[in-house]
Amino acid sequence: MKHHLIIVACLLVALASCAQSKEATSTDAAGTKAPASAIVENRQANGDVYYARRATLFDLLPVGESDIIMLGNSLTDGAEWNELLDNPNVKNRGIVGDIVQGLYERMKPILVGQPAKVFIMSGVNDVSHGVTADSIARATEKLIVLIKAYSPRTKIYLQSMLPFNNQVREWKLLVGREQVVVDANRLLEQVARRQEVTWINLYPLFADEQGRLRAEYTNDGLHLLGPAYLVWRDAIKPYVK
Amino acid sequence: MKHHLIIVACLLVALASCAQSKEATSTDAAGTKAPASAIVENRQANGDVYYARRATLFDLLPVGESDIIMLGNSLTDGAEWNELLDNPNVKNRGIVGDIVQGLYERMKPILVGQPAKVFIMSGVNDVSHGVTADSIARATEKLIVLIKAYSPRTKIYLQSMLPFNNQVREWKLLVGREQVVVDANRLLEQVARRQEVTWINLYPLFADEQGRLRAEYTNDGLHLLGPAYLVWRDAIKPYVK
Repeated sequence: MKHHLIIVACLLVALASCAQSKEATSTDAAGTKAPASAIVENRQANGDVYYARRATLFDLLPVGESDIIMLGNSLTDGAEWNELLDNPNVKNRGIVGDIVQGLYERMKPILVGQPAKVFIMSGVNDVSHGVTADSIARATEKLIVLIKAYSPRTKIYLQSMLPFNNQVREWKLLVGREQVVVDANRLLEQVARRQEVTWINLYPLFADEQGRLRAEYTNDGLHLLGPAYLVWRDAIKPYVK
Repeated sequence: MKHHLIIVACLLVALASCAQSKEATSTDAAGTKAPASAIVENRQANGDVYYARRATLFDLLPVGESDIIMLGNSLTDGAEWNELLDNPNVKNRGIVGDIVQGLYERMKPILVGQPAKVFIMSGVNDVSHGVTADSIARATEKLIVLIKAYSPRTKIYLQSMLPFNNQVREWKLLVGREQVVVDANRLLEQVARRQEVTWINLYPLFADEQGRLRAEYTNDGLHLLGPAYLVWRDAIKPYVK
Protein backbone atom coordinates (compact mmCIF):
# COMPACT_ATOMS: atom_id res chain seq x y z
CA MET A 1 0.00 0.00 0.00
CA LYS A 2 2.84 2.31 1.00
CA HIS A 3 4.50 1.54 -2.34
CA HIS A 4 1.38 2.44 -4.25
CA LEU A 5 1.16 5.79 -2.49
CA ILE A 6 4.81 6.48 -3.28
CA ILE A 7 4.26 5.59 -6.92
CA VAL A 8 1.18 7.79 -7.22
CA ALA A 9 3.06 10.66 -5.59
CA CYS A 10 5.98 10.14 -7.96
CA LEU A 11 3.62 10.09 -10.91
CA LEU A 12 2.07 13.39 -9.93
CA VAL A 13 5.50 14.99 -9.53
CA ALA A 14 6.52 13.47 -12.85
CA LEU A 15 3.51 14.82 -14.68
CA ALA A 16 3.96 18.29 -13.24
CA SER A 17 7.63 18.30 -14.07
CA CYS A 18 7.08 17.02 -17.59
CA ALA A 19 4.36 19.59 -18.20
CA GLN A 20 6.80 22.32 -17.21
CA SER A 21 9.44 20.84 -19.41
CA LYS A 22 7.04 20.88 -22.37
CA GLU A 23 7.27 24.64 -22.30
CA ALA A 24 10.95 24.77 -21.50
CA THR A 25 12.16 22.56 -24.32
CA SER A 26 10.58 24.29 -27.28
CA THR A 27 13.19 24.51 -29.99
CA ASP A 28 13.75 27.55 -32.10
CA ALA A 29 13.97 26.36 -35.68
CA ALA A 30 16.40 29.16 -36.50
CA GLY A 31 18.85 27.70 -34.01
CA THR A 32 19.03 28.52 -30.35
CA LYS A 33 21.35 28.17 -27.43
CA ALA A 34 18.46 27.93 -25.00
CA PRO A 35 19.07 24.94 -22.75
CA ALA A 36 16.43 22.22 -22.91
CA SER A 37 15.77 21.88 -19.20
CA ALA A 38 16.80 23.06 -15.77
CA ILE A 39 19.47 20.39 -15.53
CA VAL A 40 20.94 21.35 -18.90
CA GLU A 41 20.93 25.01 -17.88
CA ASN A 42 22.60 24.09 -14.64
CA ARG A 43 25.19 21.93 -16.40
CA GLN A 44 26.02 24.67 -18.87
CA ALA A 45 26.30 27.25 -16.08
CA ASN A 46 28.82 24.93 -14.43
CA GLY A 47 30.88 24.66 -17.59
CA ASP A 48 29.62 21.25 -18.72
CA VAL A 49 29.28 22.41 -22.31
CA TYR A 50 29.32 18.86 -23.66
CA TYR A 51 26.16 17.94 -21.77
CA ALA A 52 24.29 21.01 -22.99
CA ARG A 53 25.47 20.45 -26.56
CA ARG A 54 24.44 16.84 -26.73
CA ALA A 55 21.05 17.64 -25.21
CA THR A 56 20.42 20.26 -27.94
CA LEU A 57 21.17 17.58 -30.54
CA PHE A 58 18.82 15.08 -28.90
CA ASP A 59 16.11 17.75 -28.86
CA LEU A 60 16.28 17.81 -32.66
CA LEU A 61 16.62 14.13 -33.53
CA PRO A 62 13.25 12.44 -34.03
CA VAL A 63 12.30 9.26 -32.22
CA GLY A 64 9.74 6.86 -33.66
CA GLU A 65 7.61 3.93 -32.61
CA SER A 66 10.08 1.33 -33.86
CA ASP A 67 13.01 2.87 -32.06
CA ILE A 68 15.11 1.31 -29.35
CA ILE A 69 16.63 3.90 -27.06
CA MET A 70 19.93 3.39 -25.26
CA LEU A 71 19.56 5.83 -22.38
CA GLY A 72 22.41 6.56 -20.05
CA ASN A 73 25.69 8.18 -19.12
CA SER A 74 29.20 7.95 -20.59
CA LEU A 75 29.05 4.15 -20.65
CA THR A 76 26.20 4.38 -23.14
CA ASP A 77 27.51 7.48 -24.89
CA GLY A 78 30.83 5.81 -25.71
CA ALA A 79 29.51 3.14 -28.07
CA GLU A 80 28.00 2.96 -31.54
CA TRP A 81 24.99 0.90 -30.48
CA ASN A 82 23.27 0.76 -33.87
CA GLU A 83 26.45 -0.85 -35.22
CA LEU A 84 27.02 -3.15 -32.26
CA LEU A 85 23.45 -4.42 -32.45
CA ASP A 86 23.28 -4.22 -36.26
CA ASN A 87 19.94 -2.45 -35.99
CA PRO A 88 19.23 1.01 -37.46
CA ASN A 89 16.40 1.56 -34.96
CA VAL A 90 18.82 1.59 -32.06
CA LYS A 91 19.55 5.16 -30.98
CA ASN A 92 22.23 6.40 -28.60
CA ARG A 93 20.90 8.76 -25.94
CA GLY A 94 23.84 8.63 -23.60
CA ILE A 95 25.56 11.74 -22.25
CA VAL A 96 28.88 11.73 -20.45
CA GLY A 97 28.44 12.53 -16.75
CA ASP A 98 24.70 12.11 -16.60
CA ILE A 99 22.86 11.19 -13.41
CA VAL A 100 19.45 9.51 -13.02
CA GLN A 101 17.70 12.84 -12.57
CA GLY A 102 19.40 14.05 -15.77
CA LEU A 103 17.85 11.19 -17.73
CA TYR A 104 14.50 12.08 -16.21
CA GLU A 105 14.73 15.72 -17.24
CA ARG A 106 15.65 14.99 -20.84
CA MET A 107 13.02 12.34 -21.56
CA LYS A 108 10.59 14.59 -23.41
CA PRO A 109 12.05 14.37 -26.96
CA ILE A 110 12.28 10.61 -26.45
CA LEU A 111 8.81 10.02 -25.03
CA VAL A 112 7.00 12.08 -27.66
CA GLY A 113 8.19 9.44 -30.14
CA GLN A 114 6.64 6.57 -28.15
CA PRO A 115 9.67 4.32 -28.73
CA ALA A 116 9.35 0.54 -28.76
CA LYS A 117 12.02 -0.02 -26.11
CA VAL A 118 14.17 1.90 -23.66
CA PHE A 119 17.32 0.45 -22.10
CA ILE A 120 18.37 2.32 -18.94
CA MET A 121 21.97 2.43 -17.66
CA SER A 122 22.71 4.93 -14.97
CA GLY A 123 23.79 5.51 -11.40
CA VAL A 124 27.58 5.54 -11.20
CA ASN A 125 27.79 9.34 -11.48
CA ASP A 126 25.21 9.55 -8.71
CA VAL A 127 27.51 7.37 -6.60
CA SER A 128 30.40 9.73 -7.32
CA HIS A 129 28.19 12.61 -6.11
CA GLY A 130 27.67 10.80 -2.78
CA VAL A 131 24.10 9.71 -3.52
CA THR A 132 22.96 6.62 -1.58
CA ALA A 133 21.86 3.32 -3.09
CA ASP A 134 18.36 4.00 -1.82
CA SER A 135 18.20 7.41 -3.54
CA ILE A 136 19.49 5.97 -6.80
CA ALA A 137 16.79 3.31 -6.72
CA ARG A 138 14.09 5.85 -5.93
CA ALA A 139 15.21 8.20 -8.72
CA THR A 140 15.28 5.28 -11.14
CA GLU A 141 11.79 4.22 -10.13
CA LYS A 142 10.59 7.78 -10.74
CA LEU A 143 12.15 7.64 -14.22
CA ILE A 144 10.43 4.34 -14.99
CA VAL A 145 7.09 5.68 -13.76
CA LEU A 146 7.52 8.69 -16.05
CA ILE A 147 8.20 6.51 -19.08
CA LYS A 148 5.22 4.27 -18.32
CA ALA A 149 2.94 7.28 -17.84
CA TYR A 150 3.87 9.05 -21.06
CA SER A 151 4.58 6.05 -23.28
CA PRO A 152 2.71 3.02 -21.93
CA ARG A 153 3.57 0.82 -24.92
CA THR A 154 7.32 1.26 -24.42
CA LYS A 155 9.06 -1.85 -23.10
CA ILE A 156 11.53 -0.87 -20.41
CA TYR A 157 14.79 -2.71 -19.70
CA LEU A 158 16.57 -1.76 -16.50
CA GLN A 159 20.23 -2.65 -16.68
CA SER A 160 22.22 -3.10 -13.50
CA MET A 161 25.05 -0.74 -12.68
CA LEU A 162 28.51 -1.97 -13.63
CA PRO A 163 31.36 -2.29 -11.15
CA PHE A 164 34.33 0.09 -11.27
CA ASN A 165 37.99 -0.58 -10.50
CA ASN A 166 39.93 1.93 -8.44
CA GLN A 167 43.10 -0.13 -8.81
CA VAL A 168 43.35 0.58 -12.54
CA ARG A 169 43.02 4.29 -11.87
CA GLU A 170 41.80 5.96 -8.73
CA TRP A 171 38.51 7.83 -9.03
CA LYS A 172 38.65 9.84 -5.83
CA LEU A 173 34.89 10.30 -5.66
CA LEU A 174 34.37 6.55 -5.91
CA VAL A 175 36.91 5.41 -3.30
CA GLY A 176 35.30 2.99 -0.86
CA ARG A 177 31.95 3.12 -2.62
CA GLU A 178 32.00 -0.30 -4.28
CA GLN A 179 29.27 -1.49 -1.93
CA VAL A 180 26.93 1.33 -3.00
CA VAL A 181 26.83 -0.21 -6.47
CA VAL A 182 26.09 -3.65 -5.03
CA ASP A 183 23.35 -2.27 -2.77
CA ALA A 184 21.87 -0.14 -5.53
CA ASN A 185 21.71 -3.14 -7.85
CA ARG A 186 19.81 -5.13 -5.22
CA LEU A 187 17.30 -2.29 -4.87
CA LEU A 188 17.10 -1.70 -8.62
CA GLU A 189 16.21 -5.35 -9.12
CA GLN A 190 13.32 -4.83 -6.67
CA VAL A 191 12.28 -1.71 -8.60
CA ALA A 192 12.23 -3.71 -11.82
CA ARG A 193 10.08 -6.41 -10.23
CA ARG A 194 7.71 -3.87 -8.67
CA GLN A 195 7.35 -1.91 -11.89
CA GLU A 196 7.15 -5.08 -13.99
CA VAL A 197 9.99 -4.12 -16.29
CA THR A 198 12.80 -6.38 -17.44
CA TRP A 199 15.87 -6.55 -15.20
CA ILE A 200 19.20 -7.20 -16.93
CA ASN A 201 21.95 -7.99 -14.46
CA LEU A 202 25.16 -7.03 -16.24
CA TYR A 203 27.22 -6.76 -13.03
CA PRO A 204 28.42 -10.39 -12.88
CA LEU A 205 29.64 -10.19 -16.48
CA PHE A 206 31.92 -7.26 -15.70
CA ALA A 207 33.06 -7.95 -12.13
CA ASP A 208 36.18 -9.86 -11.12
CA GLU A 209 36.31 -12.01 -7.97
CA GLN A 210 36.85 -8.93 -5.80
CA GLY A 211 33.84 -7.16 -7.30
CA ARG A 212 35.98 -4.80 -9.35
CA LEU A 213 35.50 -4.02 -13.03
CA ARG A 214 37.66 -6.60 -14.81
CA ALA A 215 40.97 -4.92 -15.52
CA GLU A 216 41.08 -6.17 -19.12
CA TYR A 217 37.81 -4.38 -19.90
CA THR A 218 38.97 -0.86 -19.05
CA ASN A 219 41.85 1.56 -19.40
CA ASP A 220 40.71 3.91 -16.66
CA GLY A 221 38.86 1.73 -14.17
CA LEU A 222 35.45 3.06 -15.10
CA HIS A 223 34.89 3.21 -18.87
CA LEU A 224 34.84 0.32 -21.31
CA LEU A 225 37.20 -0.80 -24.04
CA GLY A 226 35.86 -2.21 -27.31
CA PRO A 227 35.83 -5.89 -26.25
CA ALA A 228 33.78 -5.03 -23.13
CA TYR A 229 31.10 -3.48 -25.32
CA LEU A 230 30.82 -6.80 -27.13
CA VAL A 231 30.09 -8.49 -23.78
CA TRP A 232 27.39 -5.91 -23.05
CA ARG A 233 26.01 -6.21 -26.59
CA ASP A 234 25.77 -10.00 -26.30
CA ALA A 235 23.94 -9.69 -22.98
CA ILE A 236 21.21 -7.40 -24.30
CA LYS A 237 20.93 -8.72 -27.84
CA PRO A 238 18.14 -11.21 -26.97
CA TYR A 239 16.02 -8.29 -25.70
CA VAL A 240 16.66 -6.02 -28.68
CA LYS A 241 15.15 -8.23 -31.36
CA MET B 1 56.25 16.39 -61.82
CA LYS B 2 57.36 17.39 -58.34
CA HIS B 3 53.87 16.65 -57.07
CA HIS B 4 53.92 13.19 -58.60
CA LEU B 5 57.20 12.40 -56.87
CA ILE B 6 55.82 13.61 -53.56
CA ILE B 7 52.73 11.48 -54.01
CA VAL B 8 54.72 8.37 -54.91
CA ALA B 9 56.96 8.94 -51.89
CA CYS B 10 53.91 9.40 -49.66
CA LEU B 11 52.38 6.25 -51.06
CA LEU B 12 55.48 4.21 -50.27
CA VAL B 13 55.54 5.55 -46.73
CA ALA B 14 51.84 4.86 -46.45
CA LEU B 15 52.15 1.30 -47.62
CA ALA B 16 55.02 0.59 -45.26
CA SER B 17 53.17 2.17 -42.37
CA CYS B 18 49.96 0.34 -43.12
CA ALA B 19 51.79 -2.96 -43.44
CA GLN B 20 53.30 -2.41 -40.00
CA SER B 21 49.95 -1.50 -38.62
CA LYS B 22 48.47 -4.73 -39.96
CA GLU B 23 50.60 -6.55 -37.41
CA ALA B 24 50.13 -3.98 -34.69
CA THR B 25 46.35 -3.90 -34.76
CA SER B 26 45.61 -7.59 -34.45
CA THR B 27 42.83 -7.93 -31.93
CA ASP B 28 42.78 -10.59 -29.27
CA ALA B 29 39.31 -12.12 -29.36
CA ALA B 30 39.44 -12.67 -25.61
CA GLY B 31 39.74 -8.92 -25.07
CA THR B 32 42.93 -6.94 -24.97
CA LYS B 33 44.18 -3.58 -23.85
CA ALA B 34 46.83 -3.51 -26.58
CA PRO B 35 46.61 -0.16 -28.35
CA ALA B 36 45.84 -0.34 -32.03
CA SER B 37 48.68 1.85 -33.27
CA ALA B 38 51.59 4.01 -32.23
CA ILE B 39 49.38 7.05 -31.95
CA VAL B 40 46.88 5.21 -29.75
CA GLU B 41 49.72 3.94 -27.56
CA ASN B 42 51.08 7.46 -27.34
CA ARG B 43 47.68 8.91 -26.52
CA GLN B 44 47.08 6.36 -23.80
CA ALA B 45 50.54 6.94 -22.33
CA ASN B 46 49.63 10.62 -22.15
CA GLY B 47 46.42 9.91 -20.31
CA ASP B 48 44.07 10.27 -23.28
CA VAL B 49 42.13 7.18 -22.29
CA TYR B 50 39.10 8.21 -24.35
CA TYR B 51 41.05 8.11 -27.59
CA ALA B 52 42.48 4.68 -26.88
CA ARG B 53 39.07 3.37 -25.83
CA ARG B 54 37.25 4.55 -28.88
CA ALA B 55 39.99 3.20 -31.15
CA THR B 56 39.59 -0.27 -29.58
CA LEU B 57 35.87 -0.12 -30.34
CA PHE B 58 36.48 0.92 -33.96
CA ASP B 59 38.91 -1.98 -34.31
CA LEU B 60 36.02 -4.34 -33.61
CA LEU B 61 33.17 -2.76 -35.58
CA PRO B 62 32.97 -4.10 -39.11
CA VAL B 63 32.87 -1.80 -42.14
CA GLY B 64 31.27 -2.91 -45.38
CA GLU B 65 31.13 -1.91 -49.02
CA SER B 66 27.90 0.06 -48.64
CA ASP B 67 29.15 2.06 -45.67
CA ILE B 68 29.63 5.79 -45.48
CA ILE B 69 32.32 6.75 -42.99
CA MET B 70 32.28 10.02 -41.09
CA LEU B 71 35.97 10.36 -40.23
CA GLY B 72 37.19 13.08 -37.94
CA ASN B 73 37.73 14.66 -34.55
CA SER B 74 35.32 15.83 -31.84
CA LEU B 75 33.18 17.70 -34.37
CA THR B 76 32.37 14.38 -36.03
CA ASP B 77 32.37 12.38 -32.80
CA GLY B 78 29.68 14.60 -31.25
CA ALA B 79 26.83 13.76 -33.61
CA GLU B 80 24.61 10.79 -34.36
CA TRP B 81 25.26 10.84 -38.12
CA ASN B 82 23.18 7.79 -39.02
CA GLU B 83 20.19 9.55 -37.46
CA LEU B 84 20.95 12.98 -38.91
CA LEU B 85 21.27 11.51 -42.39
CA ASP B 86 18.59 8.87 -41.85
CA ASN B 87 20.87 6.24 -43.29
CA PRO B 88 21.95 3.09 -41.42
CA ASN B 89 25.09 2.80 -43.53
CA VAL B 90 26.50 6.01 -42.12
CA LYS B 91 29.08 5.23 -39.43
CA ASN B 92 30.69 7.60 -36.96
CA ARG B 93 34.47 7.30 -36.83
CA GLY B 94 35.20 10.55 -35.02
CA ILE B 95 37.40 10.73 -31.94
CA VAL B 96 37.64 13.76 -29.68
CA GLY B 97 41.05 15.44 -30.00
CA ASP B 98 42.17 13.65 -33.15
CA ILE B 99 44.68 15.13 -35.59
CA VAL B 100 45.16 14.33 -39.28
CA GLN B 101 47.94 11.86 -38.53
CA GLY B 102 45.65 10.18 -36.04
CA LEU B 103 43.08 9.55 -38.76
CA TYR B 104 45.85 8.15 -40.93
CA GLU B 105 47.03 5.72 -38.28
CA ARG B 106 43.59 4.32 -37.54
CA MET B 107 42.42 3.77 -41.13
CA LYS B 108 43.10 0.05 -41.25
CA PRO B 109 39.81 -1.27 -39.79
CA ILE B 110 37.99 1.15 -42.10
CA LEU B 111 39.90 0.41 -45.29
CA VAL B 112 39.66 -3.38 -44.97
CA GLY B 113 35.91 -2.90 -45.40
CA GLN B 114 36.31 -0.98 -48.70
CA PRO B 115 33.61 1.54 -47.76
CA ALA B 116 31.56 3.31 -50.41
CA LYS B 117 32.37 6.80 -49.13
CA VAL B 118 34.59 8.57 -46.62
CA PHE B 119 33.90 12.11 -45.39
CA ILE B 120 36.98 13.72 -43.86
CA MET B 121 36.82 16.51 -41.24
CA SER B 122 40.03 17.34 -39.46
CA GLY B 123 42.70 19.93 -38.80
CA VAL B 124 41.59 22.15 -35.92
CA ASN B 125 43.45 20.11 -33.31
CA ASP B 126 46.53 20.30 -35.50
CA VAL B 127 46.13 24.09 -35.47
CA SER B 128 45.96 24.03 -31.67
CA HIS B 129 49.23 22.06 -31.67
CA GLY B 130 50.88 24.83 -33.68
CA VAL B 131 50.89 22.93 -36.99
CA THR B 132 51.02 25.13 -40.10
CA ALA B 133 48.39 25.27 -42.83
CA ASP B 134 50.88 23.74 -45.21
CA SER B 135 51.57 20.78 -42.92
CA ILE B 136 47.86 20.19 -42.39
CA ALA B 137 47.32 20.10 -46.15
CA ARG B 138 50.26 17.75 -46.69
CA ALA B 139 49.10 15.37 -43.94
CA THR B 140 45.59 15.40 -45.42
CA GLU B 141 46.92 14.62 -48.88
CA LYS B 142 48.86 11.70 -47.41
CA LEU B 143 45.63 10.44 -45.83
CA ILE B 144 43.76 10.69 -49.13
CA VAL B 145 46.56 8.90 -50.97
CA LEU B 146 46.37 6.10 -48.39
CA ILE B 147 42.63 5.69 -48.83
CA LYS B 148 42.94 5.66 -52.63
CA ALA B 149 45.76 3.12 -52.49
CA TYR B 150 43.98 0.66 -50.21
CA SER B 151 40.39 1.22 -51.28
CA PRO B 152 40.34 2.62 -54.81
CA ARG B 153 36.55 2.35 -55.14
CA THR B 154 35.92 4.56 -52.09
CA LYS B 155 34.60 8.01 -52.95
CA ILE B 156 36.36 10.61 -50.84
CA TYR B 157 34.79 13.86 -49.66
CA LEU B 158 37.15 16.41 -48.16
CA GLN B 159 35.29 18.83 -45.95
CA SER B 160 36.77 22.22 -45.17
CA MET B 161 37.79 23.09 -41.64
CA LEU B 162 35.23 25.08 -39.68
CA PRO B 163 35.97 28.45 -38.09
CA PHE B 164 36.22 28.80 -34.29
CA ASN B 165 35.23 31.69 -32.07
CA ASN B 166 37.54 32.78 -29.29
CA GLN B 167 35.05 35.40 -28.15
CA VAL B 168 32.54 32.79 -27.00
CA ARG B 169 35.23 31.10 -24.94
CA GLU B 170 38.96 31.52 -25.26
CA TRP B 171 40.86 28.50 -26.49
CA LYS B 172 44.39 29.55 -25.56
CA LEU B 173 46.03 27.31 -28.14
CA LEU B 174 43.92 28.83 -30.91
CA VAL B 175 44.39 32.52 -30.08
CA GLY B 176 45.41 34.45 -33.17
CA ARG B 177 45.27 31.35 -35.37
CA GLU B 178 42.07 32.11 -37.28
CA GLN B 179 44.10 32.71 -40.44
CA VAL B 180 45.65 29.24 -40.27
CA VAL B 181 42.19 27.77 -40.83
CA VAL B 182 41.59 30.09 -43.80
CA ASP B 183 44.99 29.27 -45.31
CA ALA B 184 44.59 25.55 -44.68
CA ASN B 185 41.21 25.54 -46.38
CA ARG B 186 42.70 27.20 -49.48
CA LEU B 187 45.41 24.52 -49.60
CA LEU B 188 42.97 21.70 -48.84
CA GLU B 189 40.83 22.78 -51.78
CA GLN B 190 43.93 22.46 -53.97
CA VAL B 191 44.59 19.01 -52.50
CA ALA B 192 41.02 17.97 -53.34
CA ARG B 193 41.43 19.19 -56.93
CA ARG B 194 44.82 17.53 -57.33
CA GLN B 195 43.61 14.22 -55.88
CA GLU B 196 40.31 14.45 -57.77
CA VAL B 197 38.17 14.08 -54.67
CA THR B 198 35.08 16.12 -53.83
CA TRP B 199 35.68 19.37 -51.94
CA ILE B 200 32.89 20.49 -49.60
CA ASN B 201 33.39 24.02 -48.37
CA LEU B 202 31.51 24.19 -45.08
CA TYR B 203 33.40 27.24 -43.80
CA PRO B 204 31.09 29.94 -45.22
CA LEU B 205 28.06 28.22 -43.68
CA PHE B 206 29.55 28.45 -40.19
CA ALA B 207 31.47 31.75 -40.27
CA ASP B 208 30.12 35.14 -39.27
CA GLU B 209 31.25 38.34 -40.97
CA GLN B 210 34.45 38.42 -38.92
CA GLY B 211 35.32 34.86 -39.88
CA ARG B 212 34.39 33.51 -36.47
CA LEU B 213 32.20 30.48 -35.79
CA ARG B 214 28.67 31.90 -35.55
CA ALA B 215 27.98 32.46 -31.87
CA GLU B 216 24.53 30.87 -32.09
CA TYR B 217 26.03 27.58 -33.30
CA THR B 218 28.26 26.93 -30.30
CA ASN B 219 28.41 27.05 -26.53
CA ASP B 220 32.18 26.94 -26.25
CA GLY B 221 33.45 28.62 -29.42
CA LEU B 222 34.63 25.40 -31.01
CA HIS B 223 32.05 22.62 -30.80
CA LEU B 224 28.59 22.54 -32.34
CA LEU B 225 25.12 22.71 -30.87
CA GLY B 226 22.29 20.62 -32.33
CA PRO B 227 21.03 23.22 -34.85
CA ALA B 228 24.55 23.60 -36.29
CA TYR B 229 24.66 19.88 -37.01
CA LEU B 230 21.52 20.30 -39.10
CA VAL B 231 23.35 22.91 -41.20
CA TRP B 232 26.26 20.52 -41.69
CA ARG B 233 23.86 17.64 -42.44
CA ASP B 234 22.02 19.67 -45.07
CA ALA B 235 25.33 20.60 -46.73
CA ILE B 236 26.52 17.02 -47.13
CA LYS B 237 23.19 15.29 -47.70
CA PRO B 238 23.37 15.58 -51.52
CA TYR B 239 26.67 13.67 -51.44
CA VAL B 240 25.50 10.94 -49.07
CA LYS B 241 22.71 9.54 -51.23
